[in-house]
Parts: sequence; C-alpha cells; structure tokens
Amino acid sequence: MGADDNREIERKWRVKTLPEDLERYETIEMEQAYLNISPTVRIRKENSDFCLTYKGKGEGISHTEYNLPLDREAFYHMLPKCDGRIIKKTRYVIPLEGGLKAELDIFDEPFKPLMIVEVEFKSVEQAGAFIAPEWFGEDVSLDQRFKNAALAISEDFSPEDML
Amino acid sequence: MGADDNREIERKWRVKTLPEDLERYETIEMEQAYLNISPTVRIRKENSDFCLTYKGKGEGISHTEYNLPLDREAFYHMLPKCDGRIIKKTRYVIPLEGGLKAELDIFDEPFKPLMIVEVEFKSVEQAGAFIAPEWFGEDVSLDQRFKNAALAISEDFSPEDML
Repeated sequence: MGADDNREIERKWRVKTLPEDLERYETIEMEQAYLNISPTVRIRKENSDFCLTYKGKGEGISHTEYNLPLDREAFYHMLPKCDGRIIKKTRYVIPLEGGLKAELDIFDEPFKPLMIVEVEFKSVEQAGAFIAPEWFGEDVSLDQRFKNAALAISEDFSPEDML
Repeated sequence: MGADDNREIERKWRVKTLPEDLERYETIEMEQAYLNISPTVRIRKENSDFCLTYKGKGEGISHTEYNLPLDREAFYHMLPKCDGRIIKKTRYVIPLEGGLKAELDIFDEPFKPLMIVEVEFKSVEQAGAFIAPEWFGEDVSLDQRFKNAALAISEDFSPEDML
C-alpha cells in the first residue's frame, strides 16, 4: 500500500535492456486476474500469499488502492469468476538510489516476451523529479494498453507491439 | 465504516414486534450478493449507490470492514459472478438512545418473512453495556445462520426456522 491515505503514485516504463545478474534480486511469482476493470477489483497470488486489491478510478499516475488479505481457498474460489486471461509474471525487486525500488515484471505466456518496470513514489513531486536508470525504456505510465487489467481482457494482444 | 482502524463491532437480534409507524424512518432499498464468503467479498446496491465490501475474518462481534465505491456498471458486471442467491431487503434506520441506530432489515423473497435488527457500536464495552429495546427479540450475534452471507448460499433455508 502507498501513503496513509491509500493513494498510490506510480510510473511505468518499457525495458530497454535487462539489468545484469537478475538472480541476485528478490523475486515474487505473481498470478493475478480481474473481477472488474474500472474500478479495478483484482485477485493476486504473490508467492504463497493472496490478496484482493481495489483500485479507485485515478487520474494520471495516482489512484487510491486497498490491498486486503485473502487465503488460498478464497483466491481459487474467485479465479474462475475473473474476466479474460490470468496474468502470470515474475517480479524482480531491484533497489534504486534514494530508497526507491524498481519492480521489474517479466511476463509469462501468453504475454511473453512483455516486460514492464514500475516505480512507486511518495509524492507526485518525487515522481516528476525521478531520473530513470539507463536500462529503463519509454515511459508508458499513461498508456492504457500497459495496464495489467487491459492486458487481461485484451482480445488482440500482440506482444511484439508492446516491446 | 466503523472506527478509524476499519474495525466494525455489531450485535444483531431477531425482531419480536415491529416498531409502530415504520414509514416515518429513513429507508434504504438494498440488494446484495457475495463473490466470496470468508473473507467476505460482497457487492451491494443501496438505493442508487453501489459498493464493494470486504470483511475480514473476525472474532465474535468484531471484524475489519472496508467499503469501497462501485458504479452501476461494475455492480451489474459482478452480480452474475456471485454465489448463491441475491439478497433483497428494506432497511429502516431507527434512532435509539445515546446516538445509536437500529438497522431493521425486512427481507424480500426468498427470505421473507425474515427480519433482523442490527446495532453498530464504537467499542466492545459499549456493545456489552447495551440494553436492547423491548421490540428486539433474541440476540443472534454469534449465530452463523443469521449472517447474510450464510443466507445467500444456504440450500435448505426455511424462513420459519429463523423467526
């Protein structure tokens, strides 16, 4: 979760080149799917943890977000109710300067070889002042196609268009 | 929502006799259904408002609760995903002494003529000290059968058993 008021401020980028020695970073195996797109109602498995996430309709790079615990049974009960496709990806958590973290998502089939990197900020000012590392590609924060929810329900997804 | 920490403290009762002149109280037409039972993930229509509610696994009369806004489209998108039956009821909001409110729920088919009255408290102490009005019936706070989620998925519901 983000700040006390449950506001999340995030930017996201394509990936130009992968950082070296990825295996030294913390990884999270994620599986997620959507009960609703807007507002977003998502269920997610993170390694052996499960949660329900609600994301309010945001503006630009900011939105409200609540992460609420689920158990395995609840997750698998709701999974067949979800829209479109299940997203599976491996997240690498890569420390950046200033206490920030890059979350590098490497998608599994059918979204492979898609990769997206996200950074969460404490304020809109901090987000604006951020200078992306060399390995980050184009900023796609406002490109709706790169929302995981949009990917899940896209019918004409072509990974090559998104690289 | 309850206190700042999203904790809800509620007691519920059967109804012995209906208060007179019910029509003078505020009413809410409710329609609700469940995506998951435990933890509870519920969608609800309250007059012309819509929300998603998450209730954590609680102990006794206390649990965490989050109420998050939905719109009409999101509500009707998720309604067919819900388990069991849709609960429709009219809620009468009846002021009690000490700033408390009785929420009297009169259920529609297939649960008619079921009636339940609930009171929400600020603390467990306040809940314990509460003296129920004459028109309240048996305290069923801990009777799992009277949970709306349990009603929705019950297969052998017999309204007569619950009066």
